[in-house]
Amino acid sequence: MKDMLGREEVLSVEEARKLLMESASVVPAECRIDITDSLNRILSRDIVSPEDLPGFSRSTMDGYAVSASDTFGAKEGMPSYLNIAGEVFMGEHPDFEIQKGGAAKIATGGMLPANADAVVMFEQTSSVNTDMIEVLKPVAPGENIIRSGEDCKTGDVILRKGGRIRPQDVGALAGIGIAKLWAYEKPKVAIIATGDEVVPAERPLKPGQVRDINSYSLSCLIEENGGIALRQGIFKDRFETLMKAVEDSLGEADLVAITGGSSVGTKDLTAKVINTAGKPGVLFHGVSVKPGKPMIGAVINGKPVFGLPGHPAAIIVTFELFIKPVLKLLTGETDRLIHKIKRTVKAKLLKNISSSSGREDHIRVSLEEIDNELWAVPVLGKSGLITTLVKADGTIVIPLRKPGMEKGTEVEVELF
Amino acid sequence: MKDMLGREEVLSVEEARKLLMESASVVPAECRIDITDSLNRILSRDIVSPEDLPGFSRSTMDGYAVSASDTFGAKEGMPSYLNIAGEVFMGEHPDFEIQKGGAAKIATGGMLPANADAVVMFEQTSSVNTDMIEVLKPVAPGENIIRSGEDCKTGDVILRKGGRIRPQDVGALAGIGIAKLWAYEKPKVAIIATGDEVVPAERPLKPGQVRDINSYSLSCLIEENGGIALRQGIFKDRFETLMKAVEDSLGEADLVAITGGSSVGTKDLTAKVINTAGKPGVLFHGVSVKPGKPMIGAVINGKPVFGLPGHPAAIIVTFELFIKPVLKLLTGETDRLIHKIKRTVKAKLLKNISSSSGREDHIRVSLEEIDNELWAVPVLGKSGLITTLVKADGTIVIPLRKPGMEKGTEVEVELF
Repeated sequence: MKDMLGREEVLSVEEARKLLMESASVVPAECRIDITDSLNRILSRDIVSPEDLPGFSRSTMDGYAVSASDTFGAKEGMPSYLNIAGEVFMGEHPDFEIQKGGAAKIATGGMLPANADAVVMFEQTSSVNTDMIEVLKPVAPGENIIRSGEDCKTGDVILRKGGRIRPQDVGALAGIGIAKLWAYEKPKVAIIATGDEVVPAERPLKPGQVRDINSYSLSCLIEENGGIALRQGIFKDRFETLMKAVEDSLGEADLVAITGGSSVGTKDLTAKVINTAGKPGVLFHGVSVKPGKPMIGAVINGKPVFGLPGHPAAIIVTFELFIKPVLKLLTGETDRLIHKIKRTVKAKLLKNISSSSGREDHIRVSLEEIDNELWAVPVLGKSGLITTLVKADGTIVIPLRKPGMEKGTEVEVELF
Repeated sequence: MKDMLGREEVLSVEEARKLLMESASVVPAECRIDITDSLNRILSRDIVSPEDLPGFSRSTMDGYAVSASDTFGAKEGMPSYLNIAGEVFMGEHPDFEIQKGGAAKIATGGMLPANADAVVMFEQTSSVNTDMIEVLKPVAPGENIIRSGEDCKTGDVILRKGGRIRPQDVGALAGIGIAKLWAYEKPKVAIIATGDEVVPAERPLKPGQVRDINSYSLSCLIEENGGIALRQGIFKDRFETLMKAVEDSLGEADLVAITGGSSVGTKDLTAKVINTAGKPGVLFHGVSVKPGKPMIGAVINGKPVFGLPGHPAAIIVTFELFIKPVLKLLTGETDRLIHKIKRTVKAKLLKNISSSSGREDHIRVSLEEIDNELWAVPVLGKSGLITTLVKADGTIVIPLRKPGMEKGTEVEVELF
């Protein structure tokens, strides 16, 4: 089987992706953002704590700050008697210290007075008079307190460059007094829809016309994966028109995706436009994957450019296989185990499925729980149908040289 | 063990949640939104297709539209000869029909002329002259086409009320010409931080002061779960101050979360304020869970109100157990299998862990892959430490009456 550049073998998904990743030159820019806008942004620098957290030893209980050694051996019937030296007020530095045999009333979060190294809970004390308490149980040094710097120390690396910021990370940043940080700019992705028959969602249809589906779903996929989608509009299948759209897009975006182009000769038109727009141009035209075979992968002056087939299911599969990893490079995010875990789940196949060997087959499936086991149910239908995607929860892959899979096989479902 | 309302037994997580869900009266409002703003929004009405998709039979290949019966028996050496009746132009209604023995040039996406019921791919034809082709392989009726209404029909329910809108759903909406839709309003959640010792992230610290961590991480958790976070500020632990903050918050939000309140007597203060603000007031004060035990669950005039402990880890756990399910009710989203699947993963425990029985213990873990197996590594540290959450990928639960778990046990990790 020849590919569309006349090569003897169509590239495998892996070969095509490798070619693309090696040819794109990706240097995400940095920007300064507020932590209140930082959720899910990618850190462009390590975060180093500028201070100890907490900055002083704090109580984690309501009770009495003590020197632990003064409570050793205390029990009911033989309590330790301690003199109340004062009370710690919240948010204030205690202006007294604990002497041998002394104690200070303290609430959760209060600052330990000098010489105190533990807190006895109220429940384990009883009042003798206004100046004295009995302690009924011993505490160990460090008990019921968080020591100064126990959460983190000045100079500790709290978060790593390339990490995606989660809710608790924003909390930690606030905790160490970092209100602004350096993050990568979100990559801009231009989407060019083509096709003389394609009209926008809100336009009434004439016979022979269809509405643009792909630039809507593609925009959402890009936003979900950390990019900014720039919908450029719908363009006629003419060289000059498409050429101008591609040049304009290269001017404002970091990645360009051209969807559709399904008229006779349009596939060649897209390739011709890309090759005219700059070097190296088209890297591959055709990949052994279904759906998505006729796709174009290209790089123009370092920027990745895609020519995507018009079928809705092909858009989802080629996005997952090619655009998503390239987009991830552009976001600056480092791959972590947790990402893979969140994206996939193991299930058993509910029906036999066949596949022509010689291509990687991506089958849409919905998930069902039957007798406490998870089953993947193939959603059948042509790759031109958008509703098959609406019914599906994810996809499974039948590898290049496998003729199909039997009912009951354990499969890994890539979740939408 | 008595709870803080003096009941003999502290409520279990399940009992407390049930009490809360039954007492809150939740009627999410509707609003009209554009599909380009609809990703991850919740549908407040079923989506019914107003038209057939596609509205006409379309080719899925570049080739010739034919009447399939004219190709039956065709093979190399004995082809069917067909007369070219015309060419289908993209986006136009063909102004001719296919007669017996006729064919029309057509591109992917083109509208089939009358009487055509299949498409022969170019690769399986050859040109005899400008008016005639040979067909080298038969096609079946319906082959290489999508029939009118094959994707969906007028009146089909495409998406269900209560569903969260995904990228492919936005594509499907565009495809059937729905550019605006009815969705639930996002619920507004007011966050009140309390504590005389607490200052905002950007403020320098005096001795005894700490920065607000919880309202930052809580805001992000709310936004991630489909709500709008309204950070109301940091308030002093005084009855009038807190009362005004709660009343103002009830005026503008659908749910109120009060964090902190760690000074002596503050826990009682929060409960007193809630009970003064309206009925039924505090439903439970104390739950048998660690971390998070001293939390308050309340309802005021139908609106859920939470009094959350000050420890960062307690915030995350109580959010997951109580606020998240209530927030989900407020968003109008219907629970689906896929949500549970995306949220949890099975792993083996890497170390023994102990737990005091009589409370549900939530242990923070990080995930590691060792020899192709997934392991959960407990992240040890007091629940007052925010960095333990930064190091963790999720939590595991040790149930109420279990003293601990052994190394190697299979655990279900609730992912962050």
